[in-house]
Amino acid sequence: MTEESVARAHDALVEVLSPGQVRRDESTRESYSRDESDAGVFPPDLVVFPESTTQVSAVFRTCQALGVPFTPCGARSGKSGGSLPLRGGVAVSLERMNRILDVSVEDLTAVVQPGVVTGELMRVAEEKGLFYPPDPNSWEFCTLGGNVAENAGGPRALKYGVTRDYVLGLEWVLPDGEVLRVGRRTIKGVAGYDLVGLFVGSEGTLGVATEITLQLIPRPRHVKTALVVFDSVHGAARAITAVLAAGILPRTLELIDETALEAVDGRGFNFPPGSGAAVIAEVDGNVEEGLFTELAELGEICERHGAREVLVAQDESQREKLWAARRLVSRALRALKPHKISEDIVVPRSRIPDIILALKALGEELGLRVATYGHAGDGNLHANILYDGPHQRPLVETAILRMLELTVSMGGTITGEHGVGLAKREYLAMEQSEALLRLQRRLKHFFDPSDLLNPEKIFPALERS
Amino acid sequence: MTEESVARAHDALVEVLSPGQVRRDESTRESYSRDESDAGVFPPDLVVFPESTTQVSAVFRTCQALGVPFTPCGARSGKSGGSLPLRGGVAVSLERMNRILDVSVEDLTAVVQPGVVTGELMRVAEEKGLFYPPDPNSWEFCTLGGNVAENAGGPRALKYGVTRDYVLGLEWVLPDGEVLRVGRRTIKGVAGYDLVGLFVGSEGTLGVATEITLQLIPRPRHVKTALVVFDSVHGAARAITAVLAAGILPRTLELIDETALEAVDGRGFNFPPGSGAAVIAEVDGNVEEGLFTELAELGEICERHGAREVLVAQDESQREKLWAARRLVSRALRALKPHKISEDIVVPRSRIPDIILALKALGEELGLRVATYGHAGDGNLHANILYDGPHQRPLVETAILRMLELTVSMGGTITGEHGVGLAKREYLAMEQSEALLRLQRRLKHFFDPSDLLNPEKIFPALERS
Repeated sequence: MTEESVARAHDALVEVLSPGQVRRDESTRESYSRDESDAGVFPPDLVVFPESTTQVSAVFRTCQALGVPFTPCGARSGKSGGSLPLRGGVAVSLERMNRILDVSVEDLTAVVQPGVVTGELMRVAEEKGLFYPPDPNSWEFCTLGGNVAENAGGPRALKYGVTRDYVLGLEWVLPDGEVLRVGRRTIKGVAGYDLVGLFVGSEGTLGVATEITLQLIPRPRHVKTALVVFDSVHGAARAITAVLAAGILPRTLELIDETALEAVDGRGFNFPPGSGAAVIAEVDGNVEEGLFTELAELGEICERHGAREVLVAQDESQREKLWAARRLVSRALRALKPHKISEDIVVPRSRIPDIILALKALGEELGLRVATYGHAGDGNLHANILYDGPHQRPLVETAILRMLELTVSMGGTITGEHGVGLAKREYLAMEQSEALLRLQRRLKHFFDPSDLLNPEKIFPALERS
Repeated sequence: MTEESVARAHDALVEVLSPGQVRRDESTRESYSRDESDAGVFPPDLVVFPESTTQVSAVFRTCQALGVPFTPCGARSGKSGGSLPLRGGVAVSLERMNRILDVSVEDLTAVVQPGVVTGELMRVAEEKGLFYPPDPNSWEFCTLGGNVAENAGGPRALKYGVTRDYVLGLEWVLPDGEVLRVGRRTIKGVAGYDLVGLFVGSEGTLGVATEITLQLIPRPRHVKTALVVFDSVHGAARAITAVLAAGILPRTLELIDETALEAVDGRGFNFPPGSGAAVIAEVDGNVEEGLFTELAELGEICERHGAREVLVAQDESQREKLWAARRLVSRALRALKPHKISEDIVVPRSRIPDIILALKALGEELGLRVATYGHAGDGNLHANILYDGPHQRPLVETAILRMLELTVSMGGTITGEHGVGLAKREYLAMEQSEALLRLQRRLKHFFDPSDLLNPEKIFPALERS
């Protein structure tokens, strides 16, 4: 944007907001230029902080009237660049809309603003005997608005599903600033098209949620957690498949491979020496004895598939230490090598052992360290490529392409919960047909004809002739 | 349609299908003119029976080219008129596409054609130790394609969700005949817009599924069923709310009120004399003792809320008799009075007792018998108005309007699982804003600009000036 058009946009936005809600200083712009992806640095020209639905709508209308690109953002914890202001313009932060408006024990619902931190809702719900299951790794700082935009998952998705499964209704601001209420407050409902379904996971390209009605469930009374240690990641993968085939559905079956174990070992939690892979299995329910029975059966199955040890967390503090180690993986891997790229692939469950072997072989072939961990129970793995610096980037690009090819060839998807955003945009055509991409581009155009809301995300750039 | 244009359509369709797949005899047309709703009789001019995706696509293209309306249908078990050929034209029956293509124990998935009867998939899955939870009352004859179109629910939705929660991917024929694959085969995935979400529940107005990839879950090893008998429906409603508030989530909490009990009593199952209402509570899981504990706790809560008796089914045959009685309710009510209208409302859980009282009072005020039964645990009630004949129809219309007003005023929705179709079309504006209706109409136009696919459904007729 030219200096003149930034100044004009600034003045117009101050008019519909207030001076304290519109920022253009270097440091604010810098901090809204990046997220948790490695997708690049894109500083916005302006950052605005609306505090109400009316203000969000006014910001959208103003940007449309001036032809200025605008991109919503939450905690900027996204891993695919969804909130990066690719073409500059206005970053629309929803973080000041951070109130929990209602938690109803009788209705098993919560109504929240988009800037509420996911972990805060979890805590408030649990204090009331309720439970909000979706638990992205970043739950201590990510926001529910971002979770809705990305359809965030997490370890507990194995049993409980993802964000989309808990969104009943939305107050939604369309790209032109129109405000709609879609969905409902009831558990069931089929009146009209499922626009909630379409909007959740639309990655900030079809509008933004300004109020979210969520379904909660009764909090399971008991949780039991086991750490199962294996010699090799392949044994762990086969055990995971066998546990599910036996009809056991734990709430998590998290895998940590050898490289990931090395990164976190000793940092608050000590894994048994010589561990080649670990699985964190967690079961929950209302009857404690039932959980012991289930965990014992799970342990036996794992032992039949070569588990060296099954350690059951004896109290909440042990359990919390174990999970802290799991959550640390992503950051701890950065200590092994200066750079990493995390791919968020999913394969059908039967292919979990195959993909794990294939990723290991690929790393060896290319001479790159690959750490694989994540939600193996539902086939959703985070395959991390570790590398030394930009000189290795071409090799890394090759590795990514090969990984995604392997994934798609096994009937998988290139993103399980992180979204396409900018990071996966050029790979989407590996998975989706030209006809499907064309339809989705037309849908984006239907909602946002001038392509000003979070422009150029998700869909591969059209070839210009 | 004129005789001439019917003849032309007939010949064009025979060309893309075969003579045995295109019918225009009176008796076929008659049987495709109605469904399980009381929404009217609308004979199609032609009925076609495509046997492949290519044929479905060819039928759609032919109808578009000739400007002939076309309406997909399955088992015609719908309760809102969704498959009625409102403007005549071509009824497109998917019933010959009835193969189960794959059931994978390792992937926990099934791939089916749309004409597969829901109960058949359930049986095949259960034989393999798997479970397909959505169980619309009509599961013995309805089809999965219809379930997808309507986003069908059922008693087990309380714990397991509705059809939408199990659809991973679709092969989908758009109104113009283009064939797309949307969604995926993996449990998780967020690549691109969630078109599966948009298409499921679109009631045959945005296209039709020609192949459905479904998620299955491990079959719970044990199921325990209890019949809880109350003096009054109000006591039953309060007990249901209390059970959920205590953190117990059975797989069903079905309510049968006094009128519905009277209709089915003695027809294969004898309810204790003097029963004023009954609740069928069913719990499932892998550890049998855990289920007894849970059922005992549920029984105690019900007794604290005035339950007269808690009877646990002692074997599968007792259990099946109880469920047969529940499934019989809808038909048996027709024996009490010659006519009935079933409304499929949902209220937030806290309002279950309120709506039940209000419906009873409404029936008394208007001098109509109202039977209320259904999936009370998730707030989804089937309120049936029984009446003698057409002379009472104006009174019935008043009752419907008042019921839906009550529902919406309590934060509810006018349809929980039956769909809007034709039956609820003129009431949708009670629940949804003009802006939302406008957007949905524009979306329909986006997908089907000539409005030939299942025309004039879901959205209220526009006032013509």
